Amino acid sequence: MQGVDPAWLPEGAFRPIGTRRTLIRGTGPLVDTVYGEVAEACGRFGGEIVRNDPDLLLELTGDDDSEAFTYGRRDSCTTVTASGGAGLLYGFFHVVRLGEAAFTGSCETATFQPQLARRMLDHWDNVDVHPVMGQVERGYAGGSLFWADGRARGDLERVRAYGRLLAACGINALAVNNVNVHAAEARLLTDRLGEVVDIAGALRPYGIRTHLSVTFAAPMVLGGLATADPLDEGVRAWWAEAVRRVYGAIPDFGGFVVKADSEGQPGPFAYGRTHADGANMLAAALEPYGGTVHWRAFVYDHRQDWRDRTTDRARAAYDHFVPLDGEFADNAVLQVKHGPMDFQVREPVSPLIGAMPGTRLAVELQATQEYTGQQRHVCWLGPMWGEVLRFRPEEGASVGELARGGLVAVSNVGDDPFWTGHPLAQANLYTFGRLAWQPDAEPLTVLDEWIRLTFPDAPARLVAGLHAVLDGSWATYEKYTAPLGVGFMVQPGHHYGPSVDGYEYSPWGTYHFADRDGVGVDRSVASGTGYAGQYGKAWASVYESPDTCPDELLLFFHHMAYGHMLKSGRTVIQHIYDTHFEGVEEVEAAREVWGSLAGLVEPARHARVAELFDEQLRGAREWRDQVNSYFFRKSGVPDARGRIIY
Amino acid sequence: MQGVDPAWLPEGAFRPIGTRRTLIRGTGPLVDTVYGEVAEACGRFGGEIVRNDPDLLLELTGDDDSEAFTYGRRDSCTTVTASGGAGLLYGFFHVVRLGEAAFTGSCETATFQPQLARRMLDHWDNVDVHPVMGQVERGYAGGSLFWADGRARGDLERVRAYGRLLAACGINALAVNNVNVHAAEARLLTDRLGEVVDIAGALRPYGIRTHLSVTFAAPMVLGGLATADPLDEGVRAWWAEAVRRVYGAIPDFGGFVVKADSEGQPGPFAYGRTHADGANMLAAALEPYGGTVHWRAFVYDHRQDWRDRTTDRARAAYDHFVPLDGEFADNAVLQVKHGPMDFQVREPVSPLIGAMPGTRLAVELQATQEYTGQQRHVCWLGPMWGEVLRFRPEEGASVGELARGGLVAVSNVGDDPFWTGHPLAQANLYTFGRLAWQPDAEPLTVLDEWIRLTFPDAPARLVAGLHAVLDGSWATYEKYTAPLGVGFMVQPGHHYGPSVDGYEYSPWGTYHFADRDGVGVDRSVASGTGYAGQYGKAWASVYESPDTCPDELLLFFHHMAYGHMLKSGRTVIQHIYDTHFEGVEEVEAAREVWGSLAGLVEPARHARVAELFDEQLRGAREWRDQVNSYFFRKSGVPDARGRIIY
Repeated sequence: MQGVDPAWLPEGAFRPIGTRRTLIRGTGPLVDTVYGEVAEACGRFGGEIVRNDPDLLLELTGDDDSEAFTYGRRDSCTTVTASGGAGLLYGFFHVVRLGEAAFTGSCETATFQPQLARRMLDHWDNVDVHPVMGQVERGYAGGSLFWADGRARGDLERVRAYGRLLAACGINALAVNNVNVHAAEARLLTDRLGEVVDIAGALRPYGIRTHLSVTFAAPMVLGGLATADPLDEGVRAWWAEAVRRVYGAIPDFGGFVVKADSEGQPGPFAYGRTHADGANMLAAALEPYGGTVHWRAFVYDHRQDWRDRTTDRARAAYDHFVPLDGEFADNAVLQVKHGPMDFQVREPVSPLIGAMPGTRLAVELQATQEYTGQQRHVCWLGPMWGEVLRFRPEEGASVGELARGGLVAVSNVGDDPFWTGHPLAQANLYTFGRLAWQPDAEPLTVLDEWIRLTFPDAPARLVAGLHAVLDGSWATYEKYTAPLGVGFMVQPGHHYGPSVDGYEYSPWGTYHFADRDGVGVDRSVASGTGYAGQYGKAWASVYESPDTCPDELLLFFHHMAYGHMLKSGRTVIQHIYDTHFEGVEEVEAAREVWGSLAGLVEPARHARVAELFDEQLRGAREWRDQVNSYFFRKSGVPDARGRIIY
Repeated sequence: MQGVDPAWLPEGAFRPIGTRRTLIRGTGPLVDTVYGEVAEACGRFGGEIVRNDPDLLLELTGDDDSEAFTYGRRDSCTTVTASGGAGLLYGFFHVVRLGEAAFTGSCETATFQPQLARRMLDHWDNVDVHPVMGQVERGYAGGSLFWADGRARGDLERVRAYGRLLAACGINALAVNNVNVHAAEARLLTDRLGEVVDIAGALRPYGIRTHLSVTFAAPMVLGGLATADPLDEGVRAWWAEAVRRVYGAIPDFGGFVVKADSEGQPGPFAYGRTHADGANMLAAALEPYGGTVHWRAFVYDHRQDWRDRTTDRARAAYDHFVPLDGEFADNAVLQVKHGPMDFQVREPVSPLIGAMPGTRLAVELQATQEYTGQQRHVCWLGPMWGEVLRFRPEEGASVGELARGGLVAVSNVGDDPFWTGHPLAQANLYTFGRLAWQPDAEPLTVLDEWIRLTFPDAPARLVAGLHAVLDGSWATYEKYTAPLGVGFMVQPGHHYGPSVDGYEYSPWGTYHFADRDGVGVDRSVASGTGYAGQYGKAWASVYESPDTCPDELLLFFHHMAYGHMLKSGRTVIQHIYDTHFEGVEEVEAAREVWGSLAGLVEPARHARVAELFDEQLRGAREWRDQVNSYFFRKSGVPDARGRIIY
């Protein structure tokens, strides 16, 4: 598209196919999409679509919903076979990813299929510009792809291009509006459904099902009913009728996303009903059409008194939902944030995951970098997500395996020409898609793939430079911001930049309890909030004691003296100082690496990143100096290396 | 007016005149105003306007601009004589204030005149609703009396009623728009002047001259010139023409208010010119018509690096302006905030006052309670203002005497039915007016007067109750918020509620430097920023040493250990704890007093105040607990009395 970055689908990625002879067998809308892709590539590079003797055979053998495909090569012919259109599409992009390698040598036939059926992006996009949150809540990539100032943006070509990028990394579901559903957004379910129909139409050719965030109060605010009680027959009938109309307009509609009884959103508590009651009512309405309700588990008291040490927000999701295990309908998915708090740089994995064997869980990640630099700082989240997905709550299944309801990410995309604002933040979106397809994939392999696709024919120096800049960027960000599992030391409201006490005396339940002697939250069973006991036995015991708790989570689980010696051999306070100095040095080094890549990257992309590196460095220094000064003023302990602390 | 509180001019206040025979001599617009007032009072209460044998003689004897009047009573006739219409108006309100006492016994003739010629309110009202600051910047009383959502509000009857209230307490000048002049407001000077003409017309009958805040960049943003250089002939000509047009439409226009080179507003620095150059250019344009420019001295670096300990915002006004003493034109008034920072609960008097003998200074107070409870907390500012006005920078003149350019307050009024939001905040507006007329007046006497007028025929219990609630309310507010001269421990941005470190690592130059050992800013000459040396010798020596510095300013001038023993016999840390507990107890007591006055105050007023007391108490407890917890966690010193600190 004119003026829009091709991201991981640059023209050159289609040269291997576009110079070959391709035979396409089968019919259907997704075959049409594949046909169109191949035809365009051939048009550009001189290959052709043929009826025999192909270099590449793309064959649809059935008409089911399978997303699997088989891939192999022998006798100089590369073959993709699938029993469903979606499988053929994913097989096609598999060939694109392989590049020239798909057309050399031979390769045993193998079947590929996604480990998770639902691989979803939640867009926190508002239809109306919210007076505080703007067009996209926690969006750092310009406006919305879908909405502008109260209306559908109407640029369906861009939406289609977006769907194509998503399909190429394996995403198959998308919610088009914010989980905080305001007045205008509520109406997407009813009289403004037509705008959703258009978006769904633009995404469908790439196998992406459209979802809506709805307000639990819809029967009242839209339907004029006196109640939204999920057990009320009138309410159930209203939802059934609303859903019927939606499927009449969007036959492959995916379902609903619901944030209920959370941060001020309405929910079943108002009627003395459980969250299972609420979710199951919507599940019942969606069930006849194959739809799913994603019910978010992000329920906690956001009006906590900071004086109250007995309440622990980290406990909330577990305490609310585990008693309901087994009560949710089959097509009600409980969508759980990966950590117990809210997408901090470092959190333990939510103890809810693994504790509800009778419930389909989806795990929610945050691609948009709310707490990780807001797409002004480089912070490739692959390693964090990899750690989460491979974590094993108990002996047995990993988080990636337990996420039977799918993997969801809050989108980091907007109408910015680079899609994600920071050009390197594209790597997060791509990595999410690939990990959703295969949660046990090695993130670094995905990063390699992203680099190879986004920077085709990159010389080794560029590949190495991109690795150097991205590889350890999450660890670097953690170093200059959040030591040892302390979170929320951010500016209140917008969450950009440091404010060590910004949330310390607030009602949000996010405290570090730093005093002159130490810092951290005692979440042990023995002497603290008991949160550590929400884990299975093995992890509960690891987290319970400072002796066994991993350093990087020590202050999340324990209040420790500044002089406590870490496993690393440093004291807590010296760790704070050291990591903050190191973090800034690492940003300086990464910035220098990026500077050295000028000439190897298109000027516009290089300049945008270079500019953002200036801001990242400024920000990293601000973090370093505020955090170090705060803890120095509090602890009185000088830096062992005598560096400047203010 | 229907639905609008009569404030200190309730119907009953006019009964003494309205039941008498009044003779009015003289002609002119302000005589007409007086005539109308008397006629309305007589119409209501049965008195009459007569040609002879009056109980009250109101006589204009000339046609000058004097605001003085003589007042006396003998032979059962009360006489007010004035050589100017304004004097007659003020004499009339003098009689209103005296009430029945004006018509009993006899009284030596005496002359009354304002000690300050300009007694001015600055409205920080925006024409357009500002996305962050709203319709009224730092306004806590609803919308603007003048503007609504981009347009003139057009309620000139309300504006006239406002002017009447102001005249009755002695105010004679008013700026109709915010000193931060945005795009729409800039145009009030030119194509939107008509809207100002209407307001001026509604205020004129009460002797109030209208002023405009203008942007220094007006020749560029309005006139399309390439520069706003004050020495450029084209720029000077543009201003001369703009002023000519203004006076063509508003012959008694007061002049301009200018915030230049301050917090992002444009100014002469951009052209390498001094503030005297800038002010004098506008003064020259205004001079032919008798206008004045109020040039604000609020110039400082608001992008300071918090790491930089050498820069001290408190020094800024003095450092910028004292070198220019003697260079300002006669009709250029340098408008100086009363303290060196920004309207904190407790500041020393600005050292600029008294240091510029060759410059007409106006002193700026803040009636709007930005840092003193935002008109949700009772905080009668009379005692603070009285202290400021009676402060003597050197042997000789007081601040009230040095304010030759007048006394100015940032208005606390909006379109709220009670004018000031909190009904008791009316006392601040009234007190300001009376202190501007007579800066050495005893604030408590003014409070008495306000109570007597606002609550006519109040029983002794009500008078005593109002005193109990208002008298010490500033001291109470100081206790639960700002100990020993520490300021800015407020939530950033909106400034409501506590955040001890909210501005500690910010670019605004407002720090307390609390660490585990102590708190406060060393502003001594010997070891600090040198700010103390900006005062005349006597005060410089008092402030220089912690031994002589008054307790209430100790942490403004010195960084002191928590264990330092105050003159009060308490340590710094124990003072912090004690005052915060006391402050809350005093709010509880005041709230109880107010509760006991139910039945003595109209229900609507009583309910509004009672509701606000709930919020004040909640807020006071929040201040107490956050400040105490912050300093306890930092110092580790327990409360000597063992009270709960979190």
